[in-house]
Amino acid sequence: MTALGNSLADPLYQQLADTLEEMIQRRSLRPGDRMPSLRQFSRQRRVSVPTALQAYAMLEDRGLLEARPKSGYYVRASRADTVRPPSAGSQSPRVADYSKLDPLTAILASQNAPDLIPLGVALPDPRNLPEARMAREMSAVARHLRRQYSSYDIPPGCLPLRTELARRSLEWGCAMSPEDFILTIGCTEALALALRAVCEPGDTVVVESPTYFGLAVVLQDLGLKALPIPVDAERGINLDVLEQALRKTRVAACALIPSFHNPVGSCMSDNDKQRLCQMLAKRDIPVIEDDIYGDLQHSGPRPRCLRAFDENVILCSSFSKTVAPGLRLGYIAPARWKARVMRLKQTTTLANPGLPSFALAAYLREGGYERYLRKARSIYRQQVNHMRELLVHALPEGIALSKPKGGFVLWCELPPQMDAVRLSRSAQRSGISIAPGPLFSPRGEFSNFMRINCGYRVDAKIENAVITLGKLAKDQLRRKG
Amino acid sequence: MTALGNSLADPLYQQLADTLEEMIQRRSLRPGDRMPSLRQFSRQRRVSVPTALQAYAMLEDRGLLEARPKSGYYVRASRADTVRPPSAGSQSPRVADYSKLDPLTAILASQNAPDLIPLGVALPDPRNLPEARMAREMSAVARHLRRQYSSYDIPPGCLPLRTELARRSLEWGCAMSPEDFILTIGCTEALALALRAVCEPGDTVVVESPTYFGLAVVLQDLGLKALPIPVDAERGINLDVLEQALRKTRVAACALIPSFHNPVGSCMSDNDKQRLCQMLAKRDIPVIEDDIYGDLQHSGPRPRCLRAFDENVILCSSFSKTVAPGLRLGYIAPARWKARVMRLKQTTTLANPGLPSFALAAYLREGGYERYLRKARSIYRQQVNHMRELLVHALPEGIALSKPKGGFVLWCELPPQMDAVRLSRSAQRSGISIAPGPLFSPRGEFSNFMRINCGYRVDAKIENAVITLGKLAKDQLRRKG
Repeated sequence: MTALGNSLADPLYQQLADTLEEMIQRRSLRPGDRMPSLRQFSRQRRVSVPTALQAYAMLEDRGLLEARPKSGYYVRASRADTVRPPSAGSQSPRVADYSKLDPLTAILASQNAPDLIPLGVALPDPRNLPEARMAREMSAVARHLRRQYSSYDIPPGCLPLRTELARRSLEWGCAMSPEDFILTIGCTEALALALRAVCEPGDTVVVESPTYFGLAVVLQDLGLKALPIPVDAERGINLDVLEQALRKTRVAACALIPSFHNPVGSCMSDNDKQRLCQMLAKRDIPVIEDDIYGDLQHSGPRPRCLRAFDENVILCSSFSKTVAPGLRLGYIAPARWKARVMRLKQTTTLANPGLPSFALAAYLREGGYERYLRKARSIYRQQVNHMRELLVHALPEGIALSKPKGGFVLWCELPPQMDAVRLSRSAQRSGISIAPGPLFSPRGEFSNFMRINCGYRVDAKIENAVITLGKLAKDQLRRKG
Repeated sequence: MTALGNSLADPLYQQLADTLEEMIQRRSLRPGDRMPSLRQFSRQRRVSVPTALQAYAMLEDRGLLEARPKSGYYVRASRADTVRPPSAGSQSPRVADYSKLDPLTAILASQNAPDLIPLGVALPDPRNLPEARMAREMSAVARHLRRQYSSYDIPPGCLPLRTELARRSLEWGCAMSPEDFILTIGCTEALALALRAVCEPGDTVVVESPTYFGLAVVLQDLGLKALPIPVDAERGINLDVLEQALRKTRVAACALIPSFHNPVGSCMSDNDKQRLCQMLAKRDIPVIEDDIYGDLQHSGPRPRCLRAFDENVILCSSFSKTVAPGLRLGYIAPARWKARVMRLKQTTTLANPGLPSFALAAYLREGGYERYLRKARSIYRQQVNHMRELLVHALPEGIALSKPKGGFVLWCELPPQMDAVRLSRSAQRSGISIAPGPLFSPRGEFSNFMRINCGYRVDAKIENAVITLGKLAKDQLRRKG
């Protein structure tokens, strides 16, 4: 596979393979179906027979076709297709703090160790990022804009980047202006500023259950409590449970991941997004939206932001999953809390470093980002599907697995008697990181769940890591049984 | 004057002029003294007569010598030399919040407006910074280290930079290791993390009176109160007043600027630093040291950090005054609070952007930074002295003026009936920013004080701004009188 951003276009055989893969996933081609012969296919598609062969071989590599001697190519029966989705968290929400998280912070701290095979983080493979392009932009900015980036880039920060964000907001279903944005140090600073702007220590915040553990530690450090509402693997946060909970509990804000939820992968429908916004606007509860995976749908149109349904939603995001985690290119659209967020930004970090912002602005302005995103979406779809197959074959019988519509993490439910924290410790001793379920809950739920990163290209190292993980899981199960 | 960092060494006549300037400032040569004739001086110093003439001409330009026809060169009587130092804050400290600061935040917000002549900020002239050198380093890092800076630079951050900091700590009178440091987004994040690590909302923190208003707004946003202790223009914080105050008031921490205080310019002696450390260690009160101007002494050796006298001092600083404000190259040495500060760093901004850190590490490692600092120190000494002369001539009779030993700000006491906030408003209407005294006090003290930035090269624009400021001050005085 060529490095992203370097090839001008995908080769023809790959475009063919991608089209066939989508047909298989949409079940236009079903397991057991016989594929057209190479000669037929080349005639139908007006390509040469060798090109048709390359496309079929690629799908064979992806585990989607099998060649039967003297009979032709068949769509493979996928075990991953029949696996059920993981179950949701407790349906009777209770306010909780994160005291059960403390013993787990050692796992959090070790996740980024560079010698571990990174199944526990939620990070893209650097080879999937537009690194070469950004390096060129940054080198050019370093040489030609030194007066700009040497001075304070006083908040709201780099106008050219905010102008590009406003332009991109049309894609999100919004029509924002450069004045709507404040640049931040990654999505982490955006979330922390948003929470500080609308909450006081001791307040309660609605979160999804499970939810991103980065949000959990921010809540903990700000002295905030959580009201965890279950997430359905398909539809996202359970709005009926939320509505009931809001009748009983006074909450200061909601902090949610409506599109391509981390770790569940669900994406709320437009109808549900609208119902959520109305429910919260009626009660005057501020909503903080984490949209960090929003650009990474696996197919079809980009989902609309919650912000598109209510301009009082505080939108937080970054380019950490799409351009580079290390550049810390975050932003917040603080809605009517702008003055407060501006002030908090100044007393937290004063200003953003200007250089990466000016470089990203140039990249977005000069074009190529949409083309890069199209490729990245197809890569993550493939990686996620590949990893689902690997997990289903390696792990014990009876697991459940999410089928995310975007992003690059999987949420995996192990047999109920299993302990994912113990599994993560033995995996770490084997050089593999995973993220055990209790990290994602304020009450230590999901003891038999884990989140698996599919951001990395599936090479022999990753394949072997999944096989090892499966053996460790089966070992644990045998000793229990 | 040649651009900093581009010339290989100062020309001979400039070295001579600098030596003579130091003699005049140390009063080895006194106002009215006749200088050696050019012929004598060239013989004494073994330089040519034209070189001696260039040196004398340079000192004439700096306002230090005057040529009397047919008689020779004389040391000029400086009115700035006879002006008294500004008085200290209230000697009877009382705990205060920063409620009086709120009406002034509009002044703070407008200070950085790019169309104002920048006497209100505390910023170096970009022409005084090693911009060309850093641009080269950053361009090289952008091209050659893209895998490093694209990934998260997980706290404590960029080891090569922390290694250089450890090496530099010998200059500060410390012997620190790379493990002692955590990189931050400027000194602002360092101070905020330090305060959050050792205080709870509602706690009281000892600060100097006056002190840096950036610290004031951080305290305010963290819900902390201040106990302001007066600063002597020469010796720094008044240790006797502090000792008495500590007997009466329970404080959670001290946040101080021991070397080249902002705005007063004082530098504590080693003896006083030691006494301070002992006083606070005995009571187990954590000390947060802001050392941001520590590298910018005007002559002699660099002052030792407070941290050199007690390894439990939390040291906060950055390269914003020496390399570039816009790169956000800050750091904290959190002493025994390291685990807590690491955690708070992760929930505030997660990680620093790596690119500027790797570039600065290369600059510090490859050399040239010490030579740059020598030149910067001499430039700021000259700019501060030049600005003192301008202010004494432009402002009303009876002002008092600090004589800082390092850094580049002046603290100016106007006649008691004057209102510096009103002066700052009329200055702003004339296109000039100044920082009025009440910004520097939790109780709105120093109503007739202002801080003046000397970071910029004194050109005709700056000279005219000071003349305008003087007229505005005299106008206000006339209307009052």
